[in-house]
Amino acid sequence: MSTLDMIEAAAIRLNGHVRETPILTSPFLDEIAGRRVLIKPECLQHTGSFKFRGAWSAISALDDAAGKRGVIAFSSGNHAQGVAYAAAQHGVSSVIIMPSDAPKLKIDNTRALGAEVVLYDRAKESREEIGEALASERGLTLIRPYDEPQVIAGQGTTGLEIARQAKDLGVTEADVLICCGGGGLTSGIALALEEHAPGLRARPCEPEGFDDVKRSLASGSIQNNNATSGNICDAILTPQPGQITFPILKRLCGPGFSVSEQEAMHAVALAFLRLKIVLEPGGAVSLASALFRKDEIEGDAVVVVASGGNVDPQVFRQALEFLT
Amino acid sequence: MSTLDMIEAAAIRLNGHVRETPILTSPFLDEIAGRRVLIKPECLQHTGSFKFRGAWSAISALDDAAGKRGVIAFSSGNHAQGVAYAAAQHGVSSVIIMPSDAPKLKIDNTRALGAEVVLYDRAKESREEIGEALASERGLTLIRPYDEPQVIAGQGTTGLEIARQAKDLGVTEADVLICCGGGGLTSGIALALEEHAPGLRARPCEPEGFDDVKRSLASGSIQNNNATSGNICDAILTPQPGQITFPILKRLCGPGFSVSEQEAMHAVALAFLRLKIVLEPGGAVSLASALFRKDEIEGDAVVVVASGGNVDPQVFRQALEFLT
Repeated sequence: MSTLDMIEAAAIRLNGHVRETPILTSPFLDEIAGRRVLIKPECLQHTGSFKFRGAWSAISALDDAAGKRGVIAFSSGNHAQGVAYAAAQHGVSSVIIMPSDAPKLKIDNTRALGAEVVLYDRAKESREEIGEALASERGLTLIRPYDEPQVIAGQGTTGLEIARQAKDLGVTEADVLICCGGGGLTSGIALALEEHAPGLRARPCEPEGFDDVKRSLASGSIQNNNATSGNICDAILTPQPGQITFPILKRLCGPGFSVSEQEAMHAVALAFLRLKIVLEPGGAVSLASALFRKDEIEGDAVVVVASGGNVDPQVFRQALEFLT
Repeated sequence: MSTLDMIEAAAIRLNGHVRETPILTSPFLDEIAGRRVLIKPECLQHTGSFKFRGAWSAISALDDAAGKRGVIAFSSGNHAQGVAYAAAQHGVSSVIIMPSDAPKLKIDNTRALGAEVVLYDRAKESREEIGEALASERGLTLIRPYDEPQVIAGQGTTGLEIARQAKDLGVTEADVLICCGGGGLTSGIALALEEHAPGLRARPCEPEGFDDVKRSLASGSIQNNNATSGNICDAILTPQPGQITFPILKRLCGPGFSVSEQEAMHAVALAFLRLKIVLEPGGAVSLASALFRKDEIEGDAVVVVASGGNVDPQVFRQALEFLT
């Protein structure tokens, strides 16, 4: 089965369970960007991010015996919520390993969505050791956040929707800007576009200082970040592109973008004002790239995947200061 | 032509120009409401509210000669932006009469959307006199915000979408909670549901102290509000139900709801947290009714029309304090 076949098979399993997010537009954003901007708001997806797609894809692909044993994931963020909710909807038990200093709201949400949350001490314990012990004891299946074919296939369904929706709006040639951490969403979309909308080109967007994918694409080999924390775009900070995702990115993507924290926050504010959607900074680096890197983009239209909206109210309040 | 025929004709004219907004859900909101909550986020409509539907309907129904002369509207809010943008997209000129003390952002937005804005001094001038002079001098067509059959027909297309989308989600019996000012949206939706989803019942939602529609429905005759300002839900403060809308509301709607400013603001905060959408307080009274008036609702599901998202950043920041 090719990866494209896996995306199309995932789309069938996801149908009726994952929300087809609309395309939003605003003449005010077109004006800033200097071209038509089509926004795909995955913040409106179940659990507030695209991660639900990949989680649903992976869990719905389990055989009955694996489903009965349950799944496990390491995450303090969007992947955790996606896995917890998708598992609960399948009647599959889930264990999420989270750091004990994660925000209480995220821990509470993940539990409320049906997961067993196992906390660990970042300073003293290894989440991998705890996870491996639990997984082997209970026979749990690990759901990786991006380097996992069924997860990539699920994220790729976003690309199938973009291909169809952009065509309906008369856009068949454009860059598609995608917030990029480990590359699961970007590689999945790139594969879907290759087949269904060859005039649309995936381009990853990252925070400045954490632009491992941009640098890896430029150099042709996997580059690391110096750190994986210390930026407001916390949802998309990863050490390096994935082993599975990078070859796909290298084959199919255009050059990457990087934006500052200020630019990401400004894009959050403009999405509030002009689109009436809630983005987290890490879910807005694509919009920031469209608005503030217009010379690096070609064509008279651009597609923006706004990937998530799980933002702390305090951070959102700060972003709104850009409007005063 | 019956009003239902007008709604269906409007739907054809609106197709491809008005956004079909999705249905959003959250298990966290279901928990608070004690039943399934299906949210129709019209804040995601062009210009940030359902008003664009009615404006498009009215302008697309003009004959060529009237279109060449142009349109006029009185509004400092959502109706102004809807008329300005719909007119511009039709190549029709628009004049919007706004008070000179309206927020600068709203004046700027309305101009940027293509309208000629005429300011008047609330204390010294009559907007009706200014408007009538301009309309007769230039032959402009007045687009009333709710007591206008083509506007009601346009708003009613929201009801056609709800009928289809709720059925797809297995909901055929439920109350449909709608933010209500003069009753254009509520009456349009009620008419569409009567024919296409007879198990769905429209129910108007208003701010406490400005619940003219609720009291009018209870008494069977048109009741007034004592004031038309002084509430944070400014988008839906009207003196009384319309002459055209009230008979429709009386025939088709269930009892009204009224909620406090605090409850509306709390609903704005929960829509941010759980749905990742931006609502203005006047666009959130329906959600507030679903969450905080559950004993007044029947059935195991409720539909909520979240009608607009044009909120000042300062007001939104205040609403977020409910989350801390």
